[in-house]
Amino acid sequence: MNPDPDYSAAYVVLETDHPSGMTGNGMTFTIGRGNEICVKAIESLTRMVVGRDLGELVSNMGQFWKQVTRDSQLRWVGPDKGVIHLASAAIVNAVWDLWAKSEQLPLWKLVSNLSPEEIANTVDWTYLEDALPKSEAIERLSAQLAGRPTRIKQLEQEGYPAYTTSAGWLGYTDDQLRQLCREALSKGWSTFKIKVGRDLADDIRRCRILREEIGPDRRLMIDANQVWGVGQALTWLPHLTPFSPWFIEEPTHPDDILGHAAIAKAVAPIKVATGEHCANAIMFKQLLKAGGMQICQIDSCRLAGVNEVLAVMLMADKFGVPVCPHAGGVGLCEYVQHLAMIDYVCISGRMDDRVCEYADHLHEHFTTPIAMSNGRYQPPTAPGYSITFNENVYERYTFPSGTEWQ
Amino acid sequence: MNPDPDYSAAYVVLETDHPSGMTGNGMTFTIGRGNEICVKAIESLTRMVVGRDLGELVSNMGQFWKQVTRDSQLRWVGPDKGVIHLASAAIVNAVWDLWAKSEQLPLWKLVSNLSPEEIANTVDWTYLEDALPKSEAIERLSAQLAGRPTRIKQLEQEGYPAYTTSAGWLGYTDDQLRQLCREALSKGWSTFKIKVGRDLADDIRRCRILREEIGPDRRLMIDANQVWGVGQALTWLPHLTPFSPWFIEEPTHPDDILGHAAIAKAVAPIKVATGEHCANAIMFKQLLKAGGMQICQIDSCRLAGVNEVLAVMLMADKFGVPVCPHAGGVGLCEYVQHLAMIDYVCISGRMDDRVCEYADHLHEHFTTPIAMSNGRYQPPTAPGYSITFNENVYERYTFPSGTEWQ
Repeated sequence: MNPDPDYSAAYVVLETDHPSGMTGNGMTFTIGRGNEICVKAIESLTRMVVGRDLGELVSNMGQFWKQVTRDSQLRWVGPDKGVIHLASAAIVNAVWDLWAKSEQLPLWKLVSNLSPEEIANTVDWTYLEDALPKSEAIERLSAQLAGRPTRIKQLEQEGYPAYTTSAGWLGYTDDQLRQLCREALSKGWSTFKIKVGRDLADDIRRCRILREEIGPDRRLMIDANQVWGVGQALTWLPHLTPFSPWFIEEPTHPDDILGHAAIAKAVAPIKVATGEHCANAIMFKQLLKAGGMQICQIDSCRLAGVNEVLAVMLMADKFGVPVCPHAGGVGLCEYVQHLAMIDYVCISGRMDDRVCEYADHLHEHFTTPIAMSNGRYQPPTAPGYSITFNENVYERYTFPSGTEWQ
Repeated sequence: MNPDPDYSAAYVVLETDHPSGMTGNGMTFTIGRGNEICVKAIESLTRMVVGRDLGELVSNMGQFWKQVTRDSQLRWVGPDKGVIHLASAAIVNAVWDLWAKSEQLPLWKLVSNLSPEEIANTVDWTYLEDALPKSEAIERLSAQLAGRPTRIKQLEQEGYPAYTTSAGWLGYTDDQLRQLCREALSKGWSTFKIKVGRDLADDIRRCRILREEIGPDRRLMIDANQVWGVGQALTWLPHLTPFSPWFIEEPTHPDDILGHAAIAKAVAPIKVATGEHCANAIMFKQLLKAGGMQICQIDSCRLAGVNEVLAVMLMADKFGVPVCPHAGGVGLCEYVQHLAMIDYVCISGRMDDRVCEYADHLHEHFTTPIAMSNGRYQPPTAPGYSITFNENVYERYTFPSGTEWQ
């Protein structure tokens, strides 16, 4: 589905009059063409933040989120989806970054310091309360309040579990595949995900080899990247279920709620994982209600910022569905580590059956890149949302004027 | 929901080397801010059409549609939704306009001259066949083939039924409302739609007056423009159902498939109408399968052109759901008259329970505006898709350089 990704970002810098020159940084991730459209949309949204007072914005983050996403004219070109929503993510996340920096806290700790009511107040509940009433969200958050300090300590000691997505190991010989697999095992990885959906015989071959190499107990996941129609998924998957994957990711189009539910029913107890292309919290609500999602893969840039991610994580918890954030690309690992930790500290209180995706590239461009240890994300300690680029990035990579493009 | 619409269009002109200077014209409709983002997206999509041969494009319209909507990088900022999909509509519709002009036929007649296989071949069936297999679509189209000439003749004699959307008559006194209602009745309108959802007591008052004025047999429709959450809709609507509306339009967020289904179940036999903000054919498939849509309100600019509208109308017919196109704004009436007529001639073969929305403004800007007679759309006779602007429109209304803006 994505044969030639050219990892890109539409990037926001909120400048302030703070004496230190503090900035709020945010981005939305794209895979190349289309990035320029997100930039244009961000320009159209600047009116939501330029000239405003940070204290006023963060004193009612739910209201601010509504202002950004409910401008009646801009809403028409969504609503709550596609380019305008990706652009909203960049702006909203930049405000969260600025808030966390101004409090001298990493974002996950900023949120971990908020009361249940304060967390619930960041969310727009208009279209969500039939799945999770705000009052019940506050109750659920309150029930996890006493355990927060213990879980923070545990995170700081152990980190958060991750899994690595290699290139999916398409196009290798049997021997190469076994070799790659053994190397990954020797590096401590215990959870493996491969791409499927291009050729059935090749999928069977690679699943067999992987299962042989990793043994019966380690987790194997398969990812179809939306290539199948529902009928096609239902005929293809029975050939792969004998290899006992933990989940099948994106078996069909992300908008096909009932299709996901039909596939989930057919492959149970194997789980269906989806969410990286799920447009908004209302669509997540559909998938959760319909039984089309057993693993919830939030995306930090497709949802319109931390507010909406919190809404989705709260609903997933209510429905008993583990959150396993989507990462990769550029910046997504930096972002989602915070979200996975917020889920653990404030919402689900659990790390079992949860893994945060990890990819080993492009971290060198950030001032405070992710820190991995023993295949686990180590909690960020620097203030902010970890998405601030090194200064030389702008000069080198700005499209099309940067030196790398020249 | 839309307090200050500023009707706008991102407009495409495909220039050709035809000796007559023939152009293909297409647009997507917006309500103001955000139009500039659609323009940017159209610029990003021009690579799909510039330098290409019309004969090659229309010889396989299904393939062309996939090229436009499946560019892997641009797809990321959708997929199939929001700005990139609105922009795709403008480009795809411009190609259909050029095709119809080159055949010297109005668009509805161009399609009415295509074989069932040719119509089915314009559609991308990848994610739709679990609802309607392509082979079954061809069978259904074939079953309507013999009746096409008779229905064309009938359309040319009688036109296609319409209903008018006034401003919804918010904010008038009882006397004013009765007066407006009587004027509309005297002009021959027999189907009335009003806005609801702002104030319950006011909604009850206006529904009561309208029902008194139009009598028990004429159709009253109510339109909530997405303002309610599901729970709110379920508590509000029982106060309005005693006035026997034919349908309730957009009772909640357009992405809330299961919410629409729950509301439809609660208000039956009153119907739920939706679709003007439904992002794509896959989302229509959800609404049809879940029972969340009893009236299918296709939009000519939100769906990515005629190809995807055909897919939706074919599915609606399979599910026994009447198509009542959304119009208003600018250009939508010009567009959807063709689609309603294609549905009648080629797909459903029925005009009962079907009405095409109508609004009495901005038609003067088109070279071949709609023609209404006795409250019915008269079939377009000019070649093309009726969306070509008068020459002076560009000089006057181009934003921000046009003389009207100056």
